[in-house]
Amino acid sequence: MQKVAIIGASGYTGVELLRLLAGHPQAEVVAVTSRQYEGQPVSQAFPSLAGYYDLECEALDVEAIAARADVVFTALPHKSAMEVVPGFLAAGCRVVDLSADYRLRDPLVYEHWYQEHTSPELLADAVYGLPELYRAQLVKAQLVANPGCYPTSIALGLAPLLEKGLIEHQTLIVDSKSGTTGAGRGLKESSLFCEVNEGFKAYGLASHRHTPEIEQNLSQLAGEPVQVSFSPHLLPVDRGILSTIYASLKQDSSTAELLELYQKRYAAEPFVRILKEGQLPNIAFVRGTNLCDIGLVVDERNRRVIVVSVIDNLVKGAAGQAIQNFNLISGFDECSGLQAAPLFP
Amino acid sequence: MQKVAIIGASGYTGVELLRLLAGHPQAEVVAVTSRQYEGQPVSQAFPSLAGYYDLECEALDVEAIAARADVVFTALPHKSAMEVVPGFLAAGCRVVDLSADYRLRDPLVYEHWYQEHTSPELLADAVYGLPELYRAQLVKAQLVANPGCYPTSIALGLAPLLEKGLIEHQTLIVDSKSGTTGAGRGLKESSLFCEVNEGFKAYGLASHRHTPEIEQNLSQLAGEPVQVSFSPHLLPVDRGILSTIYASLKQDSSTAELLELYQKRYAAEPFVRILKEGQLPNIAFVRGTNLCDIGLVVDERNRRVIVVSVIDNLVKGAAGQAIQNFNLISGFDECSGLQAAPLFP
Amino acid sequence: MQKVAIIGASGYTGVELLRLLAGHPQAEVVAVTSRQYEGQPVSQAFPSLAGYYDLECEALDVEAIAARADVVFTALPHKSAMEVVPGFLAAGCRVVDLSADYRLRDPLVYEHWYQEHTSPELLADAVYGLPELYRAQLVKAQLVANPGCYPTSIALGLAPLLEKGLIEHQTLIVDSKSGTTGAGRGLKESSLFCEVNEGFKAYGLASHRHTPEIEQNLSQLAGEPVQVSFSPHLLPVDRGILSTIYASLKQDSSTAELLELYQKRYAAEPFVRILKEGQLPNIAFVRGTNLCDIGLVVDERNRRVIVVSVIDNLVKGAAGQAIQNFNLISGFDECSGLQAAPLFP
Amino acid sequence: MQKVAIIGASGYTGVELLRLLAGHPQAEVVAVTSRQYEGQPVSQAFPSLAGYYDLECEALDVEAIAARADVVFTALPHKSAMEVVPGFLAAGCRVVDLSADYRLRDPLVYEHWYQEHTSPELLADAVYGLPELYRAQLVKAQLVANPGCYPTSIALGLAPLLEKGLIEHQTLIVDSKSGTTGAGRGLKESSLFCEVNEGFKAYGLASHRHTPEIEQNLSQLAGEPVQVSFSPHLLPVDRGILSTIYASLKQDSSTAELLELYQKRYAAEPFVRILKEGQLPNIAFVRGTNLCDIGLVVDERNRRVIVVSVIDNLVKGAAGQAIQNFNLISGFDECSGLQAAPLFP
Repeated sequence: MQKVAIIGASGYTGVELLRLLAGHPQAEVVAVTSRQYEGQPVSQAFPSLAGYYDLECEALDVEAIAARADVVFTALPHKSAMEVVPGFLAAGCRVVDLSADYRLRDPLVYEHWYQEHTSPELLADAVYGLPELYRAQLVKAQLVANPGCYPTSIALGLAPLLEKGLIEHQTLIVDSKSGTTGAGRGLKESSLFCEVNEGFKAYGLASHRHTPEIEQNLSQLAGEPVQVSFSPHLLPVDRGILSTIYASLKQDSSTAELLELYQKRYAAEPFVRILKEGQLPNIAFVRGTNLCDIGLVVDERNRRVIVVSVIDNLVKGAAGQAIQNFNLISGFDECSGLQAAPLFP
Repeated sequence: MQKVAIIGASGYTGVELLRLLAGHPQAEVVAVTSRQYEGQPVSQAFPSLAGYYDLECEALDVEAIAARADVVFTALPHKSAMEVVPGFLAAGCRVVDLSADYRLRDPLVYEHWYQEHTSPELLADAVYGLPELYRAQLVKAQLVANPGCYPTSIALGLAPLLEKGLIEHQTLIVDSKSGTTGAGRGLKESSLFCEVNEGFKAYGLASHRHTPEIEQNLSQLAGEPVQVSFSPHLLPVDRGILSTIYASLKQDSSTAELLELYQKRYAAEPFVRILKEGQLPNIAFVRGTNLCDIGLVVDERNRRVIVVSVIDNLVKGAAGQAIQNFNLISGFDECSGLQAAPLFP
Repeated sequence: MQKVAIIGASGYTGVELLRLLAGHPQAEVVAVTSRQYEGQPVSQAFPSLAGYYDLECEALDVEAIAARADVVFTALPHKSAMEVVPGFLAAGCRVVDLSADYRLRDPLVYEHWYQEHTSPELLADAVYGLPELYRAQLVKAQLVANPGCYPTSIALGLAPLLEKGLIEHQTLIVDSKSGTTGAGRGLKESSLFCEVNEGFKAYGLASHRHTPEIEQNLSQLAGEPVQVSFSPHLLPVDRGILSTIYASLKQDSSTAELLELYQKRYAAEPFVRILKEGQLPNIAFVRGTNLCDIGLVVDERNRRVIVVSVIDNLVKGAAGQAIQNFNLISGFDECSGLQAAPLFP
Repeated sequence: MQKVAIIGASGYTGVELLRLLAGHPQAEVVAVTSRQYEGQPVSQAFPSLAGYYDLECEALDVEAIAARADVVFTALPHKSAMEVVPGFLAAGCRVVDLSADYRLRDPLVYEHWYQEHTSPELLADAVYGLPELYRAQLVKAQLVANPGCYPTSIALGLAPLLEKGLIEHQTLIVDSKSGTTGAGRGLKESSLFCEVNEGFKAYGLASHRHTPEIEQNLSQLAGEPVQVSFSPHLLPVDRGILSTIYASLKQDSSTAELLELYQKRYAAEPFVRILKEGQLPNIAFVRGTNLCDIGLVVDERNRRVIVVSVIDNLVKGAAGQAIQNFNLISGFDECSGLQAAPLFP
């Protein structure tokens, strides 16, 4: 049993951590912080959780919380995260940070896309929390940089092709579509129901902040620098990311051959499901779970592969992956607390 | 550990049973029947369940399935259910029937709203599966008549008032709104996405088949015949029923007093949450769970109480309650397999 | 041709006025004010309107706008409206006010539900803008108090029954469900997509501010004081209000008889459609239009009538009715600019 | 004034033609055929249209209808269309065919993707109904082959680049997302509300039947054969198509330069709106209209252009464009009946 704290529980990632941890047999939530809900019971901030927690949301006091918790989940916006993570580490906690602050290895890249990094010395030891790629390192991590939602769906979708060197990197195009929880719980006109519902739009074309994280992953997998065009879109659904990924194949290859490659690559992975030829994934089929479903088709006329990967952005794209990492650093079964079947419909 | 079979798994109730049983520590699904998907793996019929079941959907052979299963969930349409339930009982299985066939105690009432009953002799022994009202009888039941979704939300919403005799029965009005899974997975124009989405309508006013079941429950609670006006509506959401219930109070009473009554009545119930004064329930806050949330307001100007109760129609309104009943007849913890927190958002 | 100004065009009512007036053959929009979008082209504030308007949103200067406009639509929140309406009237403009400020005839009632009224002297001359009830007075009005959305759906749904004295007033219950545009475009957590989508809730039970307006209408129709229980709910759709209205009948009456009464009462009304026996209205069938669809059923077992009325809350519940009133006070065809067919699906 | 008939009015394209023609000042609908609704008033088949039409749906009798109508809109499935179109032409009607039957100039290509063509002799004279590209020929057409929804969004999105020879054709990738009306009103499990809602999926990757039509258009624009990878996806909304189009630029070019090119190319087009730099289109902003909104971004790091085009699939992608073509062949103002502003929200 590990004692855990959730820092910044007023957003959708925070409530999703609480939802999942409520069913985790080896985790006890001992502290929840929230500026917005300070002093209120968790069940008042999130009526869905009434009966699951007796805790009150508290102010963020690193020392006091570190004294109570073994592992800390920081679900703060970037910049706010790096203000508190060093303190928790110094106090002996292990940290799973869900912000962008420790994901990019090169502080200059971080500073180009975000702002000055205030604890660059931690970047070398932070382990990027994508277990399907970095499991060995994660087991020993003090600080896990939990991946972004888009980068997770893309790295898992491309890993087998890049590891085997089967595609022309310069042709890589990623067209991603995310549910609206991805935009957070902040008050923005663009997040209002009537602005999102029955709508669909692209945003951040060729400029989204997840681009360097995506490229860091893909370059690592390829063993050489990879650049992509990354196009996010906003879906009028609560949850789910679907990434449609395009790349030219170096050599002719069939859909069946590539599916077999994927099957083998992910055969031992508990959270990756490779679809059969003729099937394509749907965000509805992973709802509420840590699963990543992948299908693909070879467009033989154009010698191009089209990979479709889906995750639940709040689970495998955030809170679920954080718990998967928590399990790894805690020596627990990697699937602990993450085994419930998808909610469909 | 109990071996269970699901009869008629091609609809939304069937897949919901499979979803919930996948996480039940004391149930092993040994057979799944489906005319539509016969011969196909469960994971092909329901891609969301890939990896959770190795079974194939099979044809319905009562004898063969009874030989393998301890408990049978029949998730068939009314009429089809009573064609197979007697056989399973005769073969020694216990049965949780999710159809309407064994809910009405009086076969004449059944025949008035449905058709001739082919096993009326079973009605006397069938136990109505609303544990909050009939727990003692359920423990020993061979045949559980699992309640309808609307009747569940209404009986739980009204039980404390009726048991205490606080309302004028002839003023009872129930205005219910159901998510579209309630209309089933059958192919009907009225269930198409573009017919339901961005729409809202009433249907079956003063004529819905759940009316006699609702009135049977309320009459039992009141100790005398109760009639209601019951108005169902169709919501453009997947899951959830919200019932807004109106009745004149016999005497002046405050919101706080009635909430206290509800708190006490349901204090020991694991799946009923009574909201605080000033709060009202939302179907989103029980999504995917066996919970029933209840709030109420006294309209003092009109000496009328307005009760709002919500459930997930597929869980507390169908598959979850069936598993709650399964737990009771199996001697398991009543909450076994039903403890996951609501999926919000 | 009339020159019109829209005061407060940053909300959904404002953009709906612009949408409808873009197709009005006898109205020219000469000024649009918006604090939020001051200095921006209308097409930047509302990209849907690009190409339809060349105007810029401007600051609110009563004198300057009054010099340009014949008729002013005030689409401001209550309180803000009464700060500017007297000025426009004094400057010789006619005003269609879409706020609540001039709807209640009794300033004490207004003050009980809102705040002090700063121009109570105008209340006597303001005409309540429900043409189906007050057409004769509207033709001559200088100040039209455009009705609220809920009250419109309820008054139209009940007028024939109250005018004929067919129901027991003290049994009146109104269960209304509104699309989310009804909550406005303000930044509130409860209006975020992920808070509304796949949810459904009641709010403001026995305390909603539309109650006195509803009761003023019904009392006027009945010729004596009428009180109701009014229960609004929030639907996860953009547009539409459906009100389900319950009342005990004084005498036995059939569905067919009452439908005939409604048919006759509204035979000459261009925007009211009475459905045939066996049909019930759907908000989707009036989307984008000034129509009110009404269906009803007599619950003979309980001698109760159930009326269902639907409108588009932004059109017949706000901007469309405002234009209908504008047509009346301008001497235009009452339907001018309001004839487009519903957008279904 | 032209007398028009709608053949096959039971689907979403049929009801959309009726919706738009209800507001067309120079068209009178004299006949509506529907196998499903034969003998029923239009208002029973489509309650939204009650009050707008007095017609009854009738059986399809080519001779009888041709005797009454000047122009015929055939809104039938492919194959059914070519069974009746020759008869209407022979009887002297002009025809706007909304099926795929006359869109492909090469009958062998048609037969590869569909089935044998039964009136290939008409292909040479059929004019492809995309006015922005073929206006001159359309004016004189007897038979208009109204374009598909996806091909319309793609051809308009790419025309300026292809006409100027600015992109590498072999890099063209089209990632399209369509609302669910695009799947039609037929009874399919995959079109049920609960299968679509809160879901998102790709389908028909590298195999969708619109591919040859898309490539015919692009090849014509480019003056040489062009192949694309075309990936359709299903959006949980009623209406709208958004196509995200990727291509490598032959030379460096800025977003501003390309937007200027688009502005010039479409300056005289009443239904194409080019967005400003920094803006991207949303399907919600063209809802219910014949508009096509286009935005673009140059991904300079990868010397790639990303074009985003949106239409309402039922209007510019079907019924609206059919009416635009009707206007052209009738000598009417091209915008007649198509000027209403978008319904937002």
